[in-house]
Amino acid sequence: MKSNHVTLKDIARILELSPSTVSRALKDHPDINEETKKLVKTFAEKVNYRPNALALSLRQQKTNTIGLIIPEIVHHFFSSVISGIEDIAYGEGYNVMICQSNENYQREVIDTQALIDHRVDGILVSVSKTTRDFKHLQNAYDNGIPMVFFDRIVEEIKTDRVITDDFLGAQIATSHLIEKGCKNILHLAAPQHLVIGSRRKEGYLKALEEHGIETDEDLIVKCDTREYVFSLQQHLMKLIEEKHIDGIFAVNDSTAIATMQALQAEGIKIPEQIKVIGFGDGPNADIAYPPLSTVEQKGYETGREAMRLLLQRLENPGIEINFSTKVLTPTLKQRKST
Amino acid sequence: MKSNHVTLKDIARILELSPSTVSRALKDHPDINEETKKLVKTFAEKVNYRPNALALSLRQQKTNTIGLIIPEIVHHFFSSVISGIEDIAYGEGYNVMICQSNENYQREVIDTQALIDHRVDGILVSVSKTTRDFKHLQNAYDNGIPMVFFDRIVEEIKTDRVITDDFLGAQIATSHLIEKGCKNILHLAAPQHLVIGSRRKEGYLKALEEHGIETDEDLIVKCDTREYVFSLQQHLMKLIEEKHIDGIFAVNDSTAIATMQALQAEGIKIPEQIKVIGFGDGPNADIAYPPLSTVEQKGYETGREAMRLLLQRLENPGIEINFSTKVLTPTLKQRKST
Repeated sequence: MKSNHVTLKDIARILELSPSTVSRALKDHPDINEETKKLVKTFAEKVNYRPNALALSLRQQKTNTIGLIIPEIVHHFFSSVISGIEDIAYGEGYNVMICQSNENYQREVIDTQALIDHRVDGILVSVSKTTRDFKHLQNAYDNGIPMVFFDRIVEEIKTDRVITDDFLGAQIATSHLIEKGCKNILHLAAPQHLVIGSRRKEGYLKALEEHGIETDEDLIVKCDTREYVFSLQQHLMKLIEEKHIDGIFAVNDSTAIATMQALQAEGIKIPEQIKVIGFGDGPNADIAYPPLSTVEQKGYETGREAMRLLLQRLENPGIEINFSTKVLTPTLKQRKST
Repeated sequence: MKSNHVTLKDIARILELSPSTVSRALKDHPDINEETKKLVKTFAEKVNYRPNALALSLRQQKTNTIGLIIPEIVHHFFSSVISGIEDIAYGEGYNVMICQSNENYQREVIDTQALIDHRVDGILVSVSKTTRDFKHLQNAYDNGIPMVFFDRIVEEIKTDRVITDDFLGAQIATSHLIEKGCKNILHLAAPQHLVIGSRRKEGYLKALEEHGIETDEDLIVKCDTREYVFSLQQHLMKLIEEKHIDGIFAVNDSTAIATMQALQAEGIKIPEQIKVIGFGDGPNADIAYPPLSTVEQKGYETGREAMRLLLQRLENPGIEINFSTKVLTPTLKQRKST
């Protein structure tokens, strides 16, 4: 990692003066002539020399700032990740600057460049849904800035990673419905080009297979937002009736909650007639009526692990450490909807 | 606003060379001797001279970065504020770096210093609940960094501000309950040292007075979180029974929703027996059962207005503009809980 912070010794060397002359010039010492003082002070101001506030980080040639690029702050999982990162970072004397890409590739590029320009010590990233080209991240990496990817990773860039075992989480959720007696389970899925979308679908299919339940492609419906549920409401109701649906596994909590509301509007009782489970375990799961069973995705732990992996690099500059991928296991959180 | 970015001309002046010599030295021109090349290159690297990527911002002596200090990202109001700020900022070529104080004074101080060190062009702040000393913010202000306060402002620092009319919002909420037939209205209040706490209580009292309803201090209970509701559950139930409570105005949505859940657990029907209204209008209001009536606090608009006020300063450096306070009016959002 390169740093361009200027030390008192640098100023002395460049101006061909002794460090003590520079130091005394900055303090307006009477032994130093006015011309030298003016030169040193102008130069120190120009190169942003900060003798006091940043003394420590200057010595270490660090800014003690971590950059974080996150798709959507409003999403509970990501805000938990932020808390986990911050709790470790501030505890170790780093502050965290957060940039929200808002699922927008262009903003992610601008944010990455800004973090490089601000000379952050390291970058933590979860890429946006619209990012298909990774040059901007490769560029940060090539600049020698340590990086850790979490949740939405970039396969092409070899670095430390923290991910959730989405396959296992979906398998747990679906198995729970089966153990509760469900036989015809609908899966409301995310787009399959997203890794979380395909992994969660595969986990659902695996659980069915393990329990000897035949799969029916009609029971996998692309529907991963609250708005999507209400726009598909008629189609879903028809499907539920025709296929005798008795369990629903939704790819995230907000889709699961909207589905419960749509079912209740039609007079369907939950969990008596249909059991519903989500994925995530944000605070909405508790607020929902009935409270939602789900699998807990460990946002806070994800943030802590990502920051720990980054710290390991920051505190061992120049030492080769093999990249590692930390996989977090989600757990069942049973409430009243199943 | 001061900036310490180094231009090619600065390097030429400091090293006592012509700009064209510096330019050619950086390009390895054969006419320049090796010693000069080495001096110029070492110096340019040391002062972080960036001839290409930052050319535009160097010319304008700007970093095109806005710093934002926010108490709690997970709070829907604040994440809406962020969206509003970003939509204006990115549209105007600025990127936004967010620091979360997490309601912690120490972190707020560290964050403020980091933003100064990173030479942001301006700062937007909502202070943490634990901040009682404002020197760090005064320091940023004294450094000539334009600042705008929003929601939680600092009275002592005279600058641009964006606030919500909390008094009026509470008055609207309480009047709505009265118009729906409520006569004995409980107010679940925030701590009174917070401006939002006292203003919302005053708005509640004003609405009672306007409708000729006598106030009863027993009907104002300090209770402003979900956890608080459940710990006070027995006390609240006793109060509700003794005082024949038929309406509840909670200082925020999550307290209102938890209250509905506590009442329902006791078999009380909402809105038939007791009507409940909150304050905020986050997405939980829609998810609650029944969906929660509330007053809409305009987070997105707050962010847009704050950024607009900041832009006005950034784009008119050196021009005196009177500070202004923008007051946003909340509006009633009626759903099924009233």
